[in-house]
Amino acid sequence: MPTVLPLSSGATLHALAARLYPIPRSITGPGVQETLALLATHAPIRIDGVASGTPLLDWEAPREWVFRSARLVAPDGRVVADAALQNLHVLNFSTGFHGRLSLEELRPHLFSLPDRPERIPYRTSYYRENWGFCLPHRAVEALAPGEYEVAIDAEHRDGRLVWGEALLPGESAEEVLFSTHCCHPQMANDNLSGLVVMTALAAELAARPRRRLTYRFLFVPGTIGAIAWLATHEAETKQIRHGLVAAGLGDGGAFHYKKSRRGAAPIDFAVPRALRRLGEAVEIEEFVPFGYDERQYASPGFDLPVGSLTRTPWGRYPEYHTDADDLDFILPAALEGSLAAYRAVVDELEARQVYRNLHPKGEPRLGKHGLYRSIGGDEAGRERELAMLWVLNLSDGNHDLATIAERSGLAPELVREAADALVGAGLLARD
Amino acid sequence: MPTVLPLSSGATLHALAARLYPIPRSITGPGVQETLALLATHAPIRIDGVASGTPLLDWEAPREWVFRSARLVAPDGRVVADAALQNLHVLNFSTGFHGRLSLEELRPHLFSLPDRPERIPYRTSYYRENWGFCLPHRAVEALAPGEYEVAIDAEHRDGRLVWGEALLPGESAEEVLFSTHCCHPQMANDNLSGLVVMTALAAELAARPRRRLTYRFLFVPGTIGAIAWLATHEAETKQIRHGLVAAGLGDGGAFHYKKSRRGAAPIDFAVPRALRRLGEAVEIEEFVPFGYDERQYASPGFDLPVGSLTRTPWGRYPEYHTDADDLDFILPAALEGSLAAYRAVVDELEARQVYRNLHPKGEPRLGKHGLYRSIGGDEAGRERELAMLWVLNLSDGNHDLATIAERSGLAPELVREAADALVGAGLLARD
Amino acid sequence: MPTVLPLSSGATLHALAARLYPIPRSITGPGVQETLALLATHAPIRIDGVASGTPLLDWEAPREWVFRSARLVAPDGRVVADAALQNLHVLNFSTGFHGRLSLEELRPHLFSLPDRPERIPYRTSYYRENWGFCLPHRAVEALAPGEYEVAIDAEHRDGRLVWGEALLPGESAEEVLFSTHCCHPQMANDNLSGLVVMTALAAELAARPRRRLTYRFLFVPGTIGAIAWLATHEAETKQIRHGLVAAGLGDGGAFHYKKSRRGAAPIDFAVPRALRRLGEAVEIEEFVPFGYDERQYASPGFDLPVGSLTRTPWGRYPEYHTDADDLDFILPAALEGSLAAYRAVVDELEARQVYRNLHPKGEPRLGKHGLYRSIGGDEAGRERELAMLWVLNLSDGNHDLATIAERSGLAPELVREAADALVGAGLLARD
Repeated sequence: MPTVLPLSSGATLHALAARLYPIPRSITGPGVQETLALLATHAPIRIDGVASGTPLLDWEAPREWVFRSARLVAPDGRVVADAALQNLHVLNFSTGFHGRLSLEELRPHLFSLPDRPERIPYRTSYYRENWGFCLPHRAVEALAPGEYEVAIDAEHRDGRLVWGEALLPGESAEEVLFSTHCCHPQMANDNLSGLVVMTALAAELAARPRRRLTYRFLFVPGTIGAIAWLATHEAETKQIRHGLVAAGLGDGGAFHYKKSRRGAAPIDFAVPRALRRLGEAVEIEEFVPFGYDERQYASPGFDLPVGSLTRTPWGRYPEYHTDADDLDFILPAALEGSLAAYRAVVDELEARQVYRNLHPKGEPRLGKHGLYRSIGGDEAGRERELAMLWVLNLSDGNHDLATIAERSGLAPELVREAADALVGAGLLARD
Repeated sequence: MPTVLPLSSGATLHALAARLYPIPRSITGPGVQETLALLATHAPIRIDGVASGTPLLDWEAPREWVFRSARLVAPDGRVVADAALQNLHVLNFSTGFHGRLSLEELRPHLFSLPDRPERIPYRTSYYRENWGFCLPHRAVEALAPGEYEVAIDAEHRDGRLVWGEALLPGESAEEVLFSTHCCHPQMANDNLSGLVVMTALAAELAARPRRRLTYRFLFVPGTIGAIAWLATHEAETKQIRHGLVAAGLGDGGAFHYKKSRRGAAPIDFAVPRALRRLGEAVEIEEFVPFGYDERQYASPGFDLPVGSLTRTPWGRYPEYHTDADDLDFILPAALEGSLAAYRAVVDELEARQVYRNLHPKGEPRLGKHGLYRSIGGDEAGRERELAMLWVLNLSDGNHDLATIAERSGLAPELVREAADALVGAGLLARD
Repeated sequence: MPTVLPLSSGATLHALAARLYPIPRSITGPGVQETLALLATHAPIRIDGVASGTPLLDWEAPREWVFRSARLVAPDGRVVADAALQNLHVLNFSTGFHGRLSLEELRPHLFSLPDRPERIPYRTSYYRENWGFCLPHRAVEALAPGEYEVAIDAEHRDGRLVWGEALLPGESAEEVLFSTHCCHPQMANDNLSGLVVMTALAAELAARPRRRLTYRFLFVPGTIGAIAWLATHEAETKQIRHGLVAAGLGDGGAFHYKKSRRGAAPIDFAVPRALRRLGEAVEIEEFVPFGYDERQYASPGFDLPVGSLTRTPWGRYPEYHTDADDLDFILPAALEGSLAAYRAVVDELEARQVYRNLHPKGEPRLGKHGLYRSIGGDEAGRERELAMLWVLNLSDGNHDLATIAERSGLAPELVREAADALVGAGLLARD
């Protein structure tokens, strides 16, 4: 395992994104492998994968995409598109192609956005063989008739579908899943922001001296990577108690939380609570079966309690899936704030202790256990006792401490201290 | 089985009601038998029944009421009441009686409505032997002293309690029950309207080339007929998934839906949905354990999910249970609209498909099944894909398509098409 | 068993409180025994208990506190405190002590209320050996330096922890628990008011010719008495269907009902209903796991449906736990009104009849059972029939009569009469 370097600020997060930016990623091939290897220098991320052609639920693992270069040269010799400058120019997962074509022959292979004529779109063709270029619509319109030279040096070869995985064991085998997609090429918010924030979070949690819960970070090629992991880890999915899909964490927008399919899982309460605690605004949205990989985790055969925490949701900002989603579009402060938000969620989940009252019949005699004022009526420590009584009364396996705090109206810290004291006295145990 | 004649318009529905109008019906006897026989010329209605005296739950089948004529003649020879002109004049199920009585002796046998002095009321005496006449209160008040001649030619004899039943098998053994009462004498809205609309609906459904669900129509003498059917078909009740009691479908009032006892059965959603789709206003009312035969179907030992769809509910229009409920009171357009409403409910229930995702773990790869755009980012077909994703995600046995449409905000047709496409691709199956 | 004397009015309730007032009670010892013996002259209360040292859940039965006298004499010979005049003066459960101390040595043994300088506080030291005096703060401040004489004639000895219990069997083994604490010394509202009202209620219920439910009254030393009873009667707790903890029933304040831990148990509906019926205002409060012995009954290992009905809740009146909670503070009318309130709750619970329809399939034929109008349309008795239909329809084991009344909108008396009529006809039986 490589040496792990810390990521601690918006500036270092942004710098890591900048290093990842030019790598020509796709769902398979050297680009995604190089990306994961770089992330693995910062957090204990292990590269895992399956061979091309492996059946995966209703899918199968694609071949590797080996992309070297793509250039489109106009009849007058001008370079219309060069993926070395901006790798969105090549249709992602494009086959190789070399040839000379007329403009009319070329047109079906050109992708642009008529309504956003200055922008290069992000287009993919994973499951149908095709080649192509993505261009600003204005550039497409300006193309003169004549013979164009296409040189796409790319191939598909047998190899592996890979993903990155960091498993950080905790005291409990109950797992928190964080998943983010690692396949998008030269775009910063979608999804280098997710990659760097999740890498930083994994590094941070790995360094914690104690974790109550087990954390699993997945850095997966979108859709097929999540499918592959689910297909090969069905037993492990039973341990997942909470999960979030991370993406779009660098733009300046407010947080948006998309609920889990279940709609009332603990994560659906923990995320708003965490952000409220940070003083961050958060828009809560209902689950829909599209978006990022939460759609796979929430497929009815798994139905995992996985929500998604982003800033501005996909598709709702004009830079989305274009070259305008560049390094200037993501803000160091936003990245750092996103890391803080995820950290706060972790803290909520860590704090989300479900305890069990070991003396559930009658109140235990607090004084005997050194937990009670000796003179009745003395007001000192009264609140602390109330907190203990609440914790004892509600620790029946159904209530976590945060819920106890909400129901009692007592400060969460006080409730937590009460639980700690009761555990210390042998009256309470983690469930 | 007689030839079945189609009923297709308000005019033909009204014409059938007019043919039924003068028949002197009661819960048993030639009147109800003639009524059912006439309905059976329009729909595949089979006459079924049990012998008089058969124990039926807490009841027993009554004897047949053979009614021939009833006349009340005043001392001056004037005919005060003649059931040949209006069969409400005779106390329904009256015993026979011939004799001459003083006005005072006669009075206990005269029934009228002091608060609606012009109207002849509908009165019955099924379970206590009695004879009598129903008259306008004004007529009762005008009766002069003297000797009256009573001639009621009626008798009770052993025979059968009968009802009509049309069973229309569908692809599924799951049943929809439509029940309407067939025992009321010369009144149009209550309940010739129910009889003709249900007969037309049965005819229409019988003619459909395909029925997903099985439909059972009951034309039953009120209360005792429903009791009799339940008593003799307890096993069949297990198949009833949805049901409606039909009556009062010819007046000009708005639809009223009385919920099933369960209050949240699928029928309780399907009826409002159907009427909304038709642009028809509908008042939704809670279940109460009186009204029509829904009270029997909803008795706690059966608790069938049977609501009731009427226009103005019983007892809330002044013509109710009087001779003013005549052929002018029911409107061809109202009858036709009621048939359309019930047809829309049927369509809702037919459309109420619960599917099961056959690839519930992860999303299936739509492209592999010919269901996906080949170039990511192409907006064509996007909504169709969203619909497929919603259908796949929620087809876990708990959600029908209409619910999926409501939850997704997508057009029901789109959701239905998505389901069809997924079934075609082998990804989805009817549950 | 002693002769039982009736308690029938606010005056007699107050007079009994006055007899109990001077007895120096604590959780164990002659004071509480004398108290229970006096109550047992008014209601069939049996004294039960366990030996000192008996393990009781997380606790153990304390030794008996034998208290004889306590005097504190100032250097100038003035008697500063004499428990013979006001037994709050002695720290409750104080050890014996005789000696002469300087003021500085004495101070840690003096308890007072700086914010209520005229009042003698109530203080206890059950589980830590200590001696002390409770004084008005003004008196403490006025103490001159010098040598004080302390004479506390008290000891702890092996004996029994006792409680009073009245078990009044009903037709059903289902139990109602009424519990009140009997350990507080010379204070009237907290809790002589609870003792006298519960004693009167027990006497009254014992005298009833018929009880549907079984009633169990507990007169327990606070906390440890409830713990002791629970520890020794775990099997009996399974029969408890409803319960109330009674205290603070003599002040002039409005009723307060603190819900059971479950929050929606039948008792949580019965109490507000009963008070509404009496025209008494009642504040409804959520459960909290402190207060009186409801906290023991509601510990998660028992979770009994026990609420608490008081007037002004503990701690919310300035006289609370001081010598100002004297006989003038409790009002005969308040005591009598409290008895009426509890009686009304009993009546609610007695009336809370869950019946079962013995003919659940189809409606029974009311006429056959003499319960129906013979002529359909006769309006007389119509409401009575509706009530019978509601009772029949909802008597499926899930609905009590009060709920049926609320759901039907019919008067509770009418619903009750309907149930009685149906029982009389053999159509309905108590569940």
